[in-house]
This record gives sequence, C-alpha cells and structure tokens, in this order.
Amino acid sequence: MEEICIINGPNLNLLGKRQPEIYGSLSFDKFFDQLEKIFPDNKIHFFQSNSEGSIIDRIHEFGFSENTGLVLNAAGYSHTSVAIADAVAAVNSPVVEVHISNVFAREDFRHKSLIAPNCVATLSGMGLYGYQAAINFLLQRS
Amino acid sequence: MEEICIINGPNLNLLGKRQPEIYGSLSFDKFFDQLEKIFPDNKIHFFQSNSEGSIIDRIHEFGFSENTGLVLNAAGYSHTSVAIADAVAAVNSPVVEVHISNVFAREDFRHKSLIAPNCVATLSGMGLYGYQAAINFLLQRS
Amino acid sequence: MEEICIINGPNLNLLGKRQPEIYGSLSFDKFFDQLEKIFPDNKIHFFQSNSEGSIIDRIHEFGFSENTGLVLNAAGYSHTSVAIADAVAAVNSPVVEVHISNVFAREDFRHKSLIAPNCVATLSGMGLYGYQAAINFLLQRS
Amino acid sequence: MEEICIINGPNLNLLGKRQPEIYGSLSFDKFFDQLEKIFPDNKIHFFQSNSEGSIIDRIHEFGFSENTGLVLNAAGYSHTSVAIADAVAAVNSPVVEVHISNVFAREDFRHKSLIAPNCVATLSGMGLYGYQAAINFLLQRS
Amino acid sequence: MEEICIINGPNLNLLGKRQPEIYGSLSFDKFFDQLEKIFPDNKIHFFQSNSEGSIIDRIHEFGFSENTGLVLNAAGYSHTSVAIADAVAAVNSPVVEVHISNVFAREDFRHKSLIAPNCVATLSGMGLYGYQAAINFLLQRS
Amino acid sequence: MEEICIINGPNLNLLGKRQPEIYGSLSFDKFFDQLEKIFPDNKIHFFQSNSEGSIIDRIHEFGFSENTGLVLNAAGYSHTSVAIADAVAAVNSPVVEVHISNVFAREDFRHKSLIAPNCVATLSGMGLYGYQAAINFLLQRS
Amino acid sequence: MEEICIINGPNLNLLGKRQPEIYGSLSFDKFFDQLEKIFPDNKIHFFQSNSEGSIIDRIHEFGFSENTGLVLNAAGYSHTSVAIADAVAAVNSPVVEVHISNVFAREDFRHKSLIAPNCVATLSGMGLYGYQAAINFLLQRS
Amino acid sequence: MEEICIINGPNLNLLGKRQPEIYGSLSFDKFFDQLEKIFPDNKIHFFQSNSEGSIIDRIHEFGFSENTGLVLNAAGYSHTSVAIADAVAAVNSPVVEVHISNVFAREDFRHKSLIAPNCVATLSGMGLYGYQAAINFLLQRS
Amino acid sequence: MEEICIINGPNLNLLGKRQPEIYGSLSFDKFFDQLEKIFPDNKIHFFQSNSEGSIIDRIHEFGFSENTGLVLNAAGYSHTSVAIADAVAAVNSPVVEVHISNVFAREDFRHKSLIAPNCVATLSGMGLYGYQAAINFLLQRS
Amino acid sequence: MEEICIINGPNLNLLGKRQPEIYGSLSFDKFFDQLEKIFPDNKIHFFQSNSEGSIIDRIHEFGFSENTGLVLNAAGYSHTSVAIADAVAAVNSPVVEVHISNVFAREDFRHKSLIAPNCVATLSGMGLYGYQAAINFLLQRS
Amino acid sequence: MEEICIINGPNLNLLGKRQPEIYGSLSFDKFFDQLEKIFPDNKIHFFQSNSEGSIIDRIHEFGFSENTGLVLNAAGYSHTSVAIADAVAAVNSPVVEVHISNVFAREDFRHKSLIAPNCVATLSGMGLYGYQAAINFLLQRS
Amino acid sequence: MEEICIINGPNLNLLGKRQPEIYGSLSFDKFFDQLEKIFPDNKIHFFQSNSEGSIIDRIHEFGFSENTGLVLNAAGYSHTSVAIADAVAAVNSPVVEVHISNVFAREDFRHKSLIAPNCVATLSGMGLYGYQAAINFLLQRS
Repeated sequence: MEEICIINGPNLNLLGKRQPEIYGSLSFDKFFDQLEKIFPDNKIHFFQSNSEGSIIDRIHEFGFSENTGLVLNAAGYSHTSVAIADAVAAVNSPVVEVHISNVFAREDFRHKSLIAPNCVATLSGMGLYGYQAAINFLLQRS
Repeated sequence: MEEICIINGPNLNLLGKRQPEIYGSLSFDKFFDQLEKIFPDNKIHFFQSNSEGSIIDRIHEFGFSENTGLVLNAAGYSHTSVAIADAVAAVNSPVVEVHISNVFAREDFRHKSLIAPNCVATLSGMGLYGYQAAINFLLQRS
Repeated sequence: MEEICIINGPNLNLLGKRQPEIYGSLSFDKFFDQLEKIFPDNKIHFFQSNSEGSIIDRIHEFGFSENTGLVLNAAGYSHTSVAIADAVAAVNSPVVEVHISNVFAREDFRHKSLIAPNCVATLSGMGLYGYQAAINFLLQRS
Repeated sequence: MEEICIINGPNLNLLGKRQPEIYGSLSFDKFFDQLEKIFPDNKIHFFQSNSEGSIIDRIHEFGFSENTGLVLNAAGYSHTSVAIADAVAAVNSPVVEVHISNVFAREDFRHKSLIAPNCVATLSGMGLYGYQAAINFLLQRS
Repeated sequence: MEEICIINGPNLNLLGKRQPEIYGSLSFDKFFDQLEKIFPDNKIHFFQSNSEGSIIDRIHEFGFSENTGLVLNAAGYSHTSVAIADAVAAVNSPVVEVHISNVFAREDFRHKSLIAPNCVATLSGMGLYGYQAAINFLLQRS
Repeated sequence: MEEICIINGPNLNLLGKRQPEIYGSLSFDKFFDQLEKIFPDNKIHFFQSNSEGSIIDRIHEFGFSENTGLVLNAAGYSHTSVAIADAVAAVNSPVVEVHISNVFAREDFRHKSLIAPNCVATLSGMGLYGYQAAINFLLQRS
Repeated sequence: MEEICIINGPNLNLLGKRQPEIYGSLSFDKFFDQLEKIFPDNKIHFFQSNSEGSIIDRIHEFGFSENTGLVLNAAGYSHTSVAIADAVAAVNSPVVEVHISNVFAREDFRHKSLIAPNCVATLSGMGLYGYQAAINFLLQRS
Repeated sequence: MEEICIINGPNLNLLGKRQPEIYGSLSFDKFFDQLEKIFPDNKIHFFQSNSEGSIIDRIHEFGFSENTGLVLNAAGYSHTSVAIADAVAAVNSPVVEVHISNVFAREDFRHKSLIAPNCVATLSGMGLYGYQAAINFLLQRS
Repeated sequence: MEEICIINGPNLNLLGKRQPEIYGSLSFDKFFDQLEKIFPDNKIHFFQSNSEGSIIDRIHEFGFSENTGLVLNAAGYSHTSVAIADAVAAVNSPVVEVHISNVFAREDFRHKSLIAPNCVATLSGMGLYGYQAAINFLLQRS
Repeated sequence: MEEICIINGPNLNLLGKRQPEIYGSLSFDKFFDQLEKIFPDNKIHFFQSNSEGSIIDRIHEFGFSENTGLVLNAAGYSHTSVAIADAVAAVNSPVVEVHISNVFAREDFRHKSLIAPNCVATLSGMGLYGYQAAINFLLQRS
Repeated sequence: MEEICIINGPNLNLLGKRQPEIYGSLSFDKFFDQLEKIFPDNKIHFFQSNSEGSIIDRIHEFGFSENTGLVLNAAGYSHTSVAIADAVAAVNSPVVEVHISNVFAREDFRHKSLIAPNCVATLSGMGLYGYQAAINFLLQRS
Repeated sequence: MEEICIINGPNLNLLGKRQPEIYGSLSFDKFFDQLEKIFPDNKIHFFQSNSEGSIIDRIHEFGFSENTGLVLNAAGYSHTSVAIADAVAAVNSPVVEVHISNVFAREDFRHKSLIAPNCVATLSGMGLYGYQAAINFLLQRS
C-alpha cells in the first residue's frame, strides 16, 4: 500500500465551524497538512463532497488501483446509502470506515451503518485522530 | 431577519405540471412573483434542485448569515436524508420545514420527517400558502 | 369563513404557568385578547377542556356550521385519541391542527398524531403565533 | 335475561348525519323506536356518551344486575381504552361488542379492539341490524 | 337471497368431539338438522373440508349465483390463507365470516383474520348460534 | 410535606366488589378510614374518577401546593394517557405511582406506564399497603 | 430447453371472470391457445389448481426433467407457502415466477413472495404477456 | 403405546433425491424398512402427503386411538399451518415433532414452528435417526 | 410507443468489471450495441449516473413525451429513494423497473423497492436480457 | 417472616462512589448499619455480587427457608437475566424487587425487568429508602 | 465417540425440588446413577453450574477432545447468552442441546435459543429421557 | 496516561486455536509479548475471563486510577451485558472497545453493542492490531 485516498461525505466541509462540541474546532484542511507531515512517504489524496453520486464516483476512481487504500467517512450517508455500500463492495481496494464522533453514543439512527459490512474495519469516536489510525492500519496490513 | 432563502427539493420543479390534484396547477415561478410582491421589503432567494448534495450546499451557503431565515421543502428527501438533516442542524439560521400537501394524510413513509426535529417549525397541508406563512413566522419572530 | 373556533385540549389551561421553557410565559387568556384585536372582523370562539369527551362535543357543536373553521390543539390527546380523530373526520368544517412546541423535536410518542390525517393542515413549533397563522390560513382559503 | 342496556360511544350521536356512506342515513333514535317494537317483552335501556368516563360509569351501573345483558359499541374507544376493557372485565353481566361498519375492512388501527377479549361475542359489519342480532343472542343464551 | 351455503374449514368435522370446553358438545350434523328446521323456506347447503383448495373450489361454485349467500368458518385458515381471502374477494355473493369461539380472547395469532376485510360481516364468540345469526343477517339484507 | 392527595382512576370505585382474586375484598372507603388513623398528623385527601379529564383537573388542583404530595393510581389510564402523564410533568408536587396488583405479572399492555417516567417513584404489587408505603415515602423525603 | 410447464395457483381459474379491472377479461384458456401458436416448436403444458399440495405435486413431476422450464404463478400461495418454496428449491429445473398484476402496487402482504428467492427470475405487472416473456427468457437462456 | 403413525409433510417424498447435502441420500422407503426391523413388536404406519388437508385427515384418523402415538414431520407446513397445529391440539394421542435437519441453523422462517407448542416434544437436527428417537420416546413414556 | 429511454443507476457503470459472479462479464456498452440491433425500428436512449438527482432529471426529461417508454434500473437507489419514486409517479410515460440479479435472493434490504409501486411492471433476475424483455413489453402494450 | 436477605447485583458495590447524581453519596455499608437499627427484631442478611451465578446461588440458599423474605436489586441483570428470573420463580420465599433510581425515567432498556413478573412486588425510584419500604412490606404481609 | 460430557446450567441443581409440575420430582443425581447403568461402556462426565463463565470453561475443557460428545442444557442462559453460543461454535466436539420441558409451549422468550444454531441437534420436551436420547444419538452417529 | 489495562472477555482465551479464519492463528499471549515491546515505557496489564462478574470486578479495580486507560474486548458479552455497560459508565477511566473481527459483517446480533455508548471509542475489524491502535489512541489523547 503506497497511496491513500481520504473521502469525506456531507457536511464535513464545515469541520471546525459546525458544532465544535461534537466535532472539534480544527478545520480538515489544517488537519490534512499535519497528516501529510506524519506520512511523508505516502501520497495522500483528499476529497470532500456533499453529493452521494460524487462520492461513488471517487470510490470507483481510486478503488481499482492495486496499491491504494481508502479511508471513508460517509457521514450522514453512512446510515442511508445502499448505493455507496454497493460501491465499496464493488471495488478491490480495502476501505476503512471512520467516524469522528462516537456514533454509538448519539441518536439511534446513527448506530446502523449500511457501509460497515463492506469495509474491512470501522473506527468510531477517535476524533480526527481516527484518520491517522486508519492510515496506520492500512499501511501495516499491506 | 431581513433575507429569506426558499429551497425546494426533488420534483418540485414540476409544480403546476405534476399531479395537480395533489399539488395544484400554479407553477412555482408564478407563485414566486406573487410572493415577492407580498414581501416588498425583504430579499427572497429561491433555489430548486433534484440533487441532495446541491440542497446541502445551499443550506451551507445561506445558513451562516445572521439576518437570513430558511424555508425548506425537501420533498422526498425529507423522509430519507440524514445528510440534509445534519446540514440543518449544523447551520445557525432558523429553518422552517414546509410541505404543500398534508403529508400525514398520505402514505406512511411520508409521516416521518428526518429533518423536522432540527427545524424550528413544520407546516404541512397549507398548499403554496405555506411558504407565505413560513415567511411571516420568520419575520415576526426576529 | 367568518367564524373561528379554537379548541384547546388537556393541560393547556396551565399555559404561562407550566414548563415556560417549552410553552412560554404568556397565559392563553392574555394571548386571546391580542388575537381578537388582530382579527376584529371575525367572531372567534375559544374553549379549553381536559376531557376528551368535551372536546368531541365542541367539535360536533361547531363543525357543521358552514362559515366556521376550527383550530384544534388536542395536546396529549393528539397522540392517543381515535375518538377525536373520528370527530374531526365526521364534521364538515375544515380543522387545522396546531402544536405550540415542535412536537417532532420531543419524545417519540409525540411524533405521531392520530388527528393529523383528518385535518386540512398541521402547524408545529410556531409558539402561540401558530394560532394566528392557522386563522390566517382558514380565512384566506375560503 | 330480561333487560338489555345499549351503550354507544363517541360520535355515534351523529348517526344519520355523519359519513352516511359508512354508517347509513338512519338516526339511532329512530332505529331505537323500531328496536323497542321488535322486543316488546324486554326493557331496553339506551345511552350514548362521547366521554370515556361516562361509558365506564354506565357499565358499572348495569353490569352487576343479574338479569341484564349489555350491548356495547365503544366506537373509537374500542381501539384505545384499557379502562373500558377493564370495566367490561370487572362486571358480571355478559357484554356483546357491536360495530356498525366492518372495522376489519377499514384502517389498520380499527382491526384491534382492546375490549373484544373481555366480551362474550363481537359482531362487526352488520349495520344497525347488529344491535338486533346482539340482543337476539343475549336473549337466547340465557 | 334464497339459498345459503355454509362452508366449514379444517378440524370443524370434529365438532362435539374436540375440545368441548371451547367448541361445545353438539356435532355440526345435529346442529344442521336444527338449522334446516329454523329456516324451512330456504335451501341450505353445507360442506366441510380440511383442504384449503377444496374450500376455494366451493366458494367459486356457489359465489357466482345471484340469490345465494355464503357463511364461512375457515377456522385455522382464517389466519393464514391469502388464497381463500382472494376467493372471497373474487366472487359476487356476500360472505359472512363466523367463528364459534371468541377468537379475540384466545392466542394472538387468532386475532387477525386475512379473510375478514373481504367479508361483509364477521361474527365471533356466539357459539353455534353464530351460524343462525349469519343466516338471519343475509336473509334480512336482501 | 403535610398534606397528601390520593387520586384513584377508572374502576377503582369497584374495589372489594370487582375481581377480588386480583384486588382483594376490602373496599377503598374502609381502607381509607384505616389510613387516616395511621397518619393522624396529616391531612389526606381522596378522589376517585372514571374520567381522564377529572383526574387531570385534580392533579392541577393539588399539584401546585408546596406542602402537598400526590399518590396516583391511574389504573387503566396509566397505559394509555399521554394527557395525564403531561399533567404529572406540569405540576410541582412530587407524584408517586401506585398499582395494587403486580402489573408486571399481568398482560403485556400493563407493563408499560406512560406516567411512570414523570413520577418520582413507582410501587407495584403491594396490595392496598402500597398507598401506605407511598405516603411514608413522601413524608420521610420532605 | 424444449418443454415448458405453466402452473397456475388458486383463483386463476377465474381469469376473465374475476375482477377484470385487475386481471383483464381474457380467460386463460383462450390466452393459452394464443401462446401455443406463438411457440409452435415447443411443447407447453398447463395446469391450474386451487390446492397447495397439487401444485407441489406438479412441480415435482416436471422439475426433474432436464429439458423443461417451469413458469409458476402461485397467486395467493406466493405469500404464505413455505412448502411450495421448498418444492421450487428441491427441483432441478429453472422456475420463473410470474404475477399478472403489479403485486408491489397492491396490499402490503402481496409485496413479499416466499417463492421468489428460489426462482431464477420474477416478473410482475406485465399482464398475461408476462407468461410469454417468461417463456422467451427460459428459451433464450438454455 | 403399541402403534405408531409417522406422518411426513410436503417434499419429503423427495428424500434421497432432493438436496442431499441437507437431507442425506437415503430414501424414506428404505429407511422405513430399517425402522420396521428395529421395532418388530410395534405396528408402524407411514403416510406422506404434500397436501395440508390430507395431513389433517390422517391426524384425525389416528389421533383418537388410545394406544397410538404420532410422529409428525410437517416440513414447510410447520411454519405456516395454524390448521395442522389445531389438529394436533384437537386429538388425544401424543404427537412428537421431528425435523431431519437442524431448522434453527437455517433460514429465520424455519425457527418458528406453529405446531411445536401443541406437541409433547420436538426433535431437530438428528437426521433420519430422529424418527427412531421419537418412537423410542413414545414407547418408553407409555 | 416509438422511443425507449434506459436509465441505469449507481455502480452500473462498472458492469462487466464489478462482481461478475453476480452481474456477468459483459459491459453495458457492448450489450447496448446488441440491443440497438435487436430493435432497429426504435430510437433507444441510454443514460447512466451515480447521482440520484441526475436520474430524476432524466426521468423528467423523457417522462412527458407521449411516445416514449422508460426502462429504469435504479440499483441501490431502488431501496432508499422516495425522490426517484416520486419522479416516476409524476411523469406520464410508463416506467418498467429492471434488476439484473434476482434481488429477492440477496440481502433483505434489496427485497423492498420504493419505486416498484409506481412502475407498471418489475422484472428481476433475468440478467441483461431483462432490458430486452422490458422493451418488448413496452412496445407490445402500446 | 423473621429473617430478611438483601441481595444486591452488579456495580452496587460502588454505591456512594459511582454516579452520585443518580445513586446518592451514601455507601451501602453505612446504610446497612442504619437499617439494622431500624429493624432490631429481625435478622437481616446482606450480599453483593457482580456475578450472575453467585446471585442465583444466594437466592437458592435463602429462598427455601420458610420464615425468610428476599429483597433483590439485580441492577443490570434485571433487564437481561432469564436465569435469575427462573431462580426467583423456583424458590418459595417471597421476593421484592427494588431499584434505587426510577428506572422508568431512564434508558428504554431499563423499563423492562425480566425478574418483575416473578416477584411479589416492585419498587422503583425511592432511593435507598426503597430497601426499608420493601422490608416493611415483607414484615406486615406475613 | 467414547466419552460424554453433560453440562447443566442455572437452577438445574434444584431438579426434583423446584416446580415439579414442570420438571418432575427426580433429582438429577439419582437420574445420573441410572444413566451410568444404561451406558456402561462409556465414561460420562457431569457438571452443573449457575455461572455462565463456568459453563464456558467446561465447554472449552471438553470440547477439543476428539472422542467426546457434549450434552448441554443451558437452561435460562440458552435464551440470552451469546458467549455460550460462541463457545459451542468454537469447539470441535458435537454439542446436543437438551431441554427437559417443551420450551415451545412456555413463555415466548423461551422459544428462541441463541445456542441452537451452533448445535448439531436440539431436543425439547422429552423430560429427563432427553439426556438419554441425546447420548444415544451421539453414540450412533460416531 | 501511563498504564493500560487490557480486559478480554469470553472465548478469547482460545485465540489462535478457535476459528482461525475469523480470529487468526496467533495466541494472545504471544501477541502480548509483542505489545509490551512496542510500548516499553508503559505498564500494560492483561486479564481474560469467561465470567461477566470477573470482568466487572476488573473494570472496577482499574477504572478509578487517574493515569490508567482501559482496552475492553467484551466479546459475546458486548451484545448482551447491561451490567458491564453500567460498569464502564461508572468508572472514571476512558475505555476503548475493541473487536478483532469486523462485527458489522457478521450476524445481526453482533451489530449492536450495549457497551459502545459508554466507551470513548470503538474499533472493529482491525484484527489484533486493534489493541495496538487503541493503546496509541489512549496515549496520544492524554
């Protein structure tokens, strides 16, 4: 595994701005700068979209490359999207699901992820550190 | 509150053309002309999209302005979109949910709105007049 | 439509006294004085009862008059009373359901109104202003 | 069995006036005159109330008399009232449940009667004739 | 209505022999003799079968005759047979559902009849007298 | 706490007369005489009603007095009345829920009390002694 | 694939006679004549039975022949028969499920077919043409 | 207990032929020959039918004989037939339910037997040996 | 009917590449070439999108033309999209739902299509041939 | 009744230390000293264990003594343990269930006690005083 | 198979003492003496524990021996213990589940065994004889 | 955070021995040696028990120390134990939930963890590496 593709779903463009008591006050762009420094030997791609279709497009784009791992925080779509779950099942690359907050301590509808059964692993509640843990996991397993 | 942003969801571009026994025969464009005349002192924005992601983009765009109120008819997405519900929760502006028909008198799946808990108010069954009532409410509460 | 009949259900006699963080601190009597001034050309009747049967009696009393519209806040009975729902279906007058608080943001059992399918419209979360909006709606539609 | 007590629940005072396509156009008073003529040897009592509590009071009043049978159409309360069901269980007299329309062909919530398990028999869909059939049944079984 | 066809379903051939505390100790044959004497002016047909398909055959055979009414006790099939329910819906003759015991006071699975919505009336808990009441109803309504 | 108000709901007027194998053979009036002797230093009020609305009226009447505690056996309404539950939530006085029989050993629909979440304590299965235990609790906690 | 066996379930003998607004006015016999002309090179068998057991017998009879395909419209049994579903799973021949009407647009209990998971394909809503489409499919896949 | 009646339900005529990975490759006829040799002192009857009604007929035929025990494998009807369950409850003879495969390790709909509550015992997963174990049990308990 | 519009939903751009054991190894482009040759007299349009909104846009674009029929494989959106279902209901053209695999033999969440009730027909499990069968059906019915 | 055995379940060893806003700040040992003084004429045993099996052992040990009553706070096991519920049903001594907090005002999974149906009474929400009330009840009923 | 290990779960130490109308009056120790005489050629181990953890320990201890079969009556833990079910799945030895009473004729919560899917067979309702039948089965299958 | 306490639940003593296709072939003891080398500056405690009560005891023992973090793999108890969930809520130390396999890709009952809402984070599907990731997370957050 040499490349990593982080895909963030709806409303995550607001990180640092939206509900900081849940999601923290750091924007994802600033966090991404840190992340690139932590993994200097790996190319890390990053995309965010509020659109279900665009997220599927990205999973297709990166999911058939042999040396790439995906880190996916589908946010609200995690709980409703059969289509994204199908995309994760369709590609060859391993996908790790990440949730910044502990979704199991929040509303009932956040306890069920349609995407999780098709991912290799799920991380919930680690804050932004969860992205780093996911990448560590992808790198060490290859 | 000085500005209002009306956001209409999927299939509402067909108003006046689609199932007139449920939705009436007036197109939204014509209704919007009337609405602007009723509220001459307020800037009213209007957007319609069939795409969940574009609706979220618009909520983000207008939802952090201090003197703006949102009127949201998410139509079919009202019953399925955690992502739009999260967008409504994430912004600062008050959002009023409007349904043209009385959704509670229709199919069971229309009785549950995922968005309603995050809105300040929900209006259902008032026809196009519901948009006017929502704006009145937003203006008088500010 | 020339006359309006407002019917308030159980515990609404405590308005201004009960849980002001939810229901506000204005008593309904004082609000009713304001309401009569806002609609000087219309006769507005007002009744409150904690008894399901008395509410049904009132709906029967006013619901067969051709020029009358009903505004009904059945409070706790909204979620449990097939009998009131049947009364609303039985009468000829249009009935608008009003809830002061946003019932969809409260306990699950408040999300389902048995009465809503038989009303022409439902308004939730507008505070006491909801009564005014309901009357406006009834007057403009006639 | 010498006496019969008919108890009608909420909205049945509107018989002949309300939704005649479901309930017919004969008022219960006129039907009751016919009924008294059909059973000239039996005292038949009749009460109607829109109040759950008053119905319970009546069941108590007549339900401990040895030679009395009850015919109960609890209408909308049939589907929601544990209290009336408890009253039926508490008294000694046999109670026959009657519904004018075929409740099983209507909305789902009308398919479940809380009262039925405590009655000796349930008749549904016979129109007003159901009252006559219930009385015939009570008289022949004694 | 001149002719009546009584159709009894599974296990009702055991009447008088099976669980007499629930179903009584009179065999249906003896009861049928009484029934023919009570209605001397009407031809009454009677069939019993333990087979779902044979019951459907009989409903087809008699259900298209203009002057015939059906009395159907489908017993255990009442709660499981979409096919019999479809047969009742397909024929023109009125069908009255009869249950000897009060099915609503027994196991939960007996509370739901798939057939009831397609019948004109349902009688439960009247013992064998229920057949007589059903015939009376069919004769008086024609 | 100096005064106590006992409110009994539907069918409890039949105590001593109704189903003695469940509720015992002592009438509440006789028990109340005993109770007054056990607590000679406290004023104890007692009301019974079969009407949901009257029970709410009484909760309002006594629930805003600072030195009063309520003991509420809402019987069948415990399982169906959002309106009484709302009344308990609306008043300031502590309310203790009492059930004479062990409701958890009876039918499923008696296992869920809508009122319990708004009470300070619930006692079930202690027979009439439960009223005495509830009063003891209210007095010692003040 | 050279031979086809069409098996029709309960009430389908009434085609052309029963509810023509749902099922059309052509009898199956006449339609079958047309069908044989459309497929002159193939032997087509046809059976109808109202009996679950007879349908299973036929599936066994034809389901082990190598060059035969089955077209099964189990009608009401589709939604209730584990036994027919087991028969379809037990045989070697491919089975195509056909429904004349669009079962998904009708009552909820028609949306779930127990048989569908064991069939190679399901066709719903094509009218009688569905049989022809099923045969075409079976012939082209062999 | 001197006689035993084995009743096999739908698709069990295919034993040895159908899905041998679940049901084994021995036909029931050959197994029955073995069984008769194992119990030389007892008359063993054996019937198989794909028809629910015929199974009920057989249960009636043998279930009232004092010295007979029944072994019933109702196969797919186990999970859907209230009518067979009623037949088992109606007869006097003890009935043991047998399933060849471990139904609890298969699809969810096979976990619930409507018949089991009316049987004296249920054996699941023992293969054909289960019939032998059931007979042993019936013989030793008498 | 002269024109046909095929609309494919999310992940169907991967056909021939994704899970060939479920979906086969033919790409849709190649299959489309074949399809055009099979129907030389009809204009066939084809669109694929991973975006729910774009699918709705296309349904609107083609659904109001009098001589056009739609073939819709909404893939993962079939099970979650009220918005697409509303679009199908809103247009005038007949829509046939197609699924390549037998969705009823896969995960539970694929058994329920929100779109099916608004389509004229549903075809499942016919592989790519299903598109051809759908077109045949649309052409013959016009 | 001369002896009392108090059995406390999991985490109750932390009383006074754990979540004092729910459970208070008094340790059970100190409370037990008070309790012994309040009932000087009775031997009171006390055990606490975090192990389900040990709790069952204790119920067996004390539950067959004629003059002993049990007070059981099974804490978290109340909602999950069929085994403890079976133990309570198996012994002869009366068992009173006590919960310190009002479990009905907390999470849904705390509303259902598997143990309650087998106890003579349940007390919830009285704080530590509940143990005293339970002992009073056991002593007065003997 | 040469050795057998019987593991009894919670409350089964009370056999012969507890609810003899359900479980009989023979203690397991006396029954075990009989069992050892019936199988003189096999070593039979026997353990009982009220603790879930100890039962798992024993399953581990015996479940990896090649010539050992397990007979497990997990009693109340059958319906709640994922951990014991996991232990059964983890070991190599075949495990037969035994219930003395017919669990399917008792409370609903006893109808579902979490352990059954991981066992080779389940026997319910045979009384203590079920242990003997289970051993016979294990011996004949090896 | 200086010390870490790893607590493993039921059946995890079999790691390396049990179902290696799910859990891998490395024993936990050998893995633990590796883990101690990876974190040479931290004291790591490790316990395993098959007993729910012992797990609770350990959580209490380590959960009130200020500089300790807990890593908990409660295995089968994760899905059934309110008592362990209460223990996690009762202590002060942060607890991270770890599952070796991806529980969301396995049986439905493994998708719901009662413990997760009370933990700071949940990691699922990372294999044994999950323990290392959990420790990294605990160390970096302190």
